[in-house]
Amino acid sequence: MKHKVAIVGAAQGKFGVREDASHRELAFEAFAGALKDSGMKKSEIGSMVTAIAADEFSFALQPSAQMHDYLGLLPKANFRVEGACASGSMALRVGWMTVASGLSDIVLVLGAEKMTEVPTAVATEIMGKGGDAIWEYPFGMSFPGYYAMIAQAHMAAFGTTEEHLAMVAVKNHFYGSQNPLAHMQKEITLEKALGSFLVAYPLKLYDCSLITDGAAAVLLANEERARDFAKPPVWIEGIGTATDTMRIAEREKVHTLQASVIAGEEAYQMAGVTPKDIDVATVHDCFTIAEICAYEDLGFCPKGEGGPFIADRQTYIGGSIPVNVDGGLKSKGHPVGATGVAMAVEITKQLRGESGSRQVPGAEIGLTHNVGGSGQVVGVTIYRKD
Amino acid sequence: MKHKVAIVGAAQGKFGVREDASHRELAFEAFAGALKDSGMKKSEIGSMVTAIAADEFSFALQPSAQMHDYLGLLPKANFRVEGACASGSMALRVGWMTVASGLSDIVLVLGAEKMTEVPTAVATEIMGKGGDAIWEYPFGMSFPGYYAMIAQAHMAAFGTTEEHLAMVAVKNHFYGSQNPLAHMQKEITLEKALGSFLVAYPLKLYDCSLITDGAAAVLLANEERARDFAKPPVWIEGIGTATDTMRIAEREKVHTLQASVIAGEEAYQMAGVTPKDIDVATVHDCFTIAEICAYEDLGFCPKGEGGPFIADRQTYIGGSIPVNVDGGLKSKGHPVGATGVAMAVEITKQLRGESGSRQVPGAEIGLTHNVGGSGQVVGVTIYRKD
Repeated sequence: MKHKVAIVGAAQGKFGVREDASHRELAFEAFAGALKDSGMKKSEIGSMVTAIAADEFSFALQPSAQMHDYLGLLPKANFRVEGACASGSMALRVGWMTVASGLSDIVLVLGAEKMTEVPTAVATEIMGKGGDAIWEYPFGMSFPGYYAMIAQAHMAAFGTTEEHLAMVAVKNHFYGSQNPLAHMQKEITLEKALGSFLVAYPLKLYDCSLITDGAAAVLLANEERARDFAKPPVWIEGIGTATDTMRIAEREKVHTLQASVIAGEEAYQMAGVTPKDIDVATVHDCFTIAEICAYEDLGFCPKGEGGPFIADRQTYIGGSIPVNVDGGLKSKGHPVGATGVAMAVEITKQLRGESGSRQVPGAEIGLTHNVGGSGQVVGVTIYRKD
Repeated sequence: MKHKVAIVGAAQGKFGVREDASHRELAFEAFAGALKDSGMKKSEIGSMVTAIAADEFSFALQPSAQMHDYLGLLPKANFRVEGACASGSMALRVGWMTVASGLSDIVLVLGAEKMTEVPTAVATEIMGKGGDAIWEYPFGMSFPGYYAMIAQAHMAAFGTTEEHLAMVAVKNHFYGSQNPLAHMQKEITLEKALGSFLVAYPLKLYDCSLITDGAAAVLLANEERARDFAKPPVWIEGIGTATDTMRIAEREKVHTLQASVIAGEEAYQMAGVTPKDIDVATVHDCFTIAEICAYEDLGFCPKGEGGPFIADRQTYIGGSIPVNVDGGLKSKGHPVGATGVAMAVEITKQLRGESGSRQVPGAEIGLTHNVGGSGQVVGVTIYRKD
């Protein structure tokens, strides 16, 4: 009944402190990359969807219109989609709908955020408003605090250790050091991670993802057009989105992101696969504990066993399910609006076999998992090699 | 191929200075109204799309998640759509796609904005950032200035007068006085409008729409479900969206919103109708000149004749095309994110024959026209009675 939807072009710009580029220029860098990757002409694009998380980073009311104009896509349709840190996956969902509903044959989904023009403390405060603005944020909560509570609950319930958390950081920095587009391209040791300064117990500096500038873009096409471009299509087979309470305090279990569980189930069902079928995944490691929760909530390992799962190197290449072998938010960086789209770029390249030293051999089915706020909205997407 | 999409429930909350209600409570008021209007159970809703224009009005990073949680729609999908003052129509577009693509059978589209918690000057400044944030806003431009330039260009090219502008205000206040949900329910005279203080030549106080708190909601359903509810469905037959340059200075013609022209053509074509077929319309009268431009850009009258068209009362009930007989942004109010959704509510009620003293007799086809910023994005939607 519906149109099938494929990714036919994908690119991520350089993530980092991008003093050299404005918001619009970051968007252009990713867009030009995706266009080149696909080999299509700009005029073939029917419409655009833009993911940007916060007005305040861009000092504008309709930042997506600025980018769209700069890309030269007038007078095609464009608007912004926001789901906090899951904005990119929500935009991908809207891009998918645009093609699947028949409104456009080819759609550009672009995510971007320029976060480093404000001081780090201000960026943390802007992001902190992604929590509950009545009972959490005004009392001093910001994201390290939210995830510290999740980590403490996980440690108390399952015996997860600070070493387990640090092991996630070591893995993601290991792969990030091999990713030329990553913000922080350096390996770290377990000792270095464990010895870094405390941010919010038990989270230390190396348990936290980065405040980053960057953009990413994918071009989607329907079945009729999917094979007209330079590279084989990567099919979007499952899309799941679920939500949870604004306040962490209202959740039955703090160590589980229930929206991840539900969005995952929805995506698996739509794609007709199970967690065992996933060959490569990117998950939302805004903090190391979040990656451990994701292993469990997405069914890669049983609940509570995420710590031993990383200790056993099951999420390295060669393990049962390689996760964040692009460096993740932890090392590649987390330019909020771009993150979900950059995840789709990574999986596209993995399923095409273009990931070089970080390639997961024989990957055919991939998954992205993108969390908004402290789990208020989660998008899970499943991709299949042509 | 695609699913057909209908509006099966619609409600607008009271627009005004709503000191009695928070952002979330405004959303609930509209949602509860739409639910009651449809007669459906809350559990039948598959997902939600929220229109909110500005983070800064809600002091939050993901304001739509706050509302969604408050409405009790967890764990269903929800995210925010933003296209400045056209956010509501962009959310309606996404709601349409959600149903048409088969992702959900029933979708809630909710728009809300609480603008009066900041001083009027601050609200005007926040909105001003909807213009170009490099070459316009930093040099002191805000929306009255943008539309004053459009008005001056229109007057210079076509002989449009300050009286023509004032006539739009008189009409919209006349109908607003009959709308119990309008922000400002009072009639005004031509003399009062012309004698009001100058904001930005030629625009006076009564040429400007209102800074308002409010929310509106529609429930969409696919063809299989559309007849299961309390009232006959209103079908969404055409959806057009187009964009224009960020900077007014880059446009070939300042007196025409080219995005209105293109979005209108797209919607007419999709619906298989012409401007002559439209029985009732709501257009984006953020300033009186904007309504005159809309008459022309949507093909209700030839270009340049919008002034004489209102002077001839062609947009009153009984004229060739009644426009904004709910009071428009001018008198009903303009809570930015809610506006596009409230327009859809008005047309739904008109096509059902529920508009009382403001009813357009025999209305079968309706149109909504919603402009973001100074014309950077425009949504035009066409509706048909069952």
